[in-house]
Amino acid sequence: MVPTLKHMNTTVNTPVITADDLLKNWQGHRGLSRRVLEAFPEKELFEFSIGGMRPYSQLAGEMLGLASAGVNGIVTGKWETRPEWNPFSETLAIKTKAEFLAAWDSVTEQIDELWPQIPAEHFNETVNAYGLYSNTVTNTIVYLLDNEVHHRGQGYVYLRALGIEPPAFWER
Amino acid sequence: MVPTLKHMNTTVNTPVITADDLLKNWQGHRGLSRRVLEAFPEKELFEFSIGGMRPYSQLAGEMLGLASAGVNGIVTGKWETRPEWNPFSETLAIKTKAEFLAAWDSVTEQIDELWPQIPAEHFNETVNAYGLYSNTVTNTIVYLLDNEVHHRGQGYVYLRALGIEPPAFWER
Repeated sequence: MVPTLKHMNTTVNTPVITADDLLKNWQGHRGLSRRVLEAFPEKELFEFSIGGMRPYSQLAGEMLGLASAGVNGIVTGKWETRPEWNPFSETLAIKTKAEFLAAWDSVTEQIDELWPQIPAEHFNETVNAYGLYSNTVTNTIVYLLDNEVHHRGQGYVYLRALGIEPPAFWER
Repeated sequence: MVPTLKHMNTTVNTPVITADDLLKNWQGHRGLSRRVLEAFPEKELFEFSIGGMRPYSQLAGEMLGLASAGVNGIVTGKWETRPEWNPFSETLAIKTKAEFLAAWDSVTEQIDELWPQIPAEHFNETVNAYGLYSNTVTNTIVYLLDNEVHHRGQGYVYLRALGIEPPAFWER
């Protein structure tokens, strides 16, 4: 079949997002997630939950650990982080909000440091993320980001149920 | 300064996501959002909420209307949809779950139809999305997607609070 103008104009392979865009989007979301973490009262961060779900500390602990072990795995092949940030642990080793925010900031720096070390061709390569999920590097990062937005949205409901106004979603 | 190997290897401008990837990710998320909608009991879809938030019907109505008016605006410049799907309306015109699911499927088709008509160079152009938000086409779509994941995550809490197991997040 001869390609028609419509076929020739197809946008299928048009690159629309660069590695830098992806990093900025991720760190923008992480900034908002940090403000959500900060908005929780100390006690409720570790204890409050709805419908048998995990408290926000555990949801945010998962985001923290997946981000840290994730960027490390992408760059070094070792999907590991500090034992106290292990995203697959059932119990959370972090015990205070201040400790949490400091850990969050460490991972922000870790991402900024390691990101430029990802070779351009690696983004499209398939990795065994966390030793568990076969996926490309790009899709692994997109999944991390989606997972963070998903659980942070749940944190918004916890905050509203606690009578606390959450930070604006559109501010990054 | 002479560029070092590290500078030359920089990943900043590496394209990592194509238009086709973005569409697949969006439609994958929309499929999950449809299953979340379906998981709500009829009455609770329109009435249940937590902490003074909107019921899930209104959150999903926003997703539906933003997607429909959004893809239309990107292609035609008119950020409009059917009046009953208007995402900026305070009241929801859709009154039953069946009607909602049918509307959802119509918008899924609308996106698939209009998407190939987006000219490649348009993704990076700045538009006045919904007549309200100055942003590139790509970032407008990314925002729509993030907004959907955010509100759908809130729907998971509603479902859990209702004692209903939500669909698996990782299935698209």
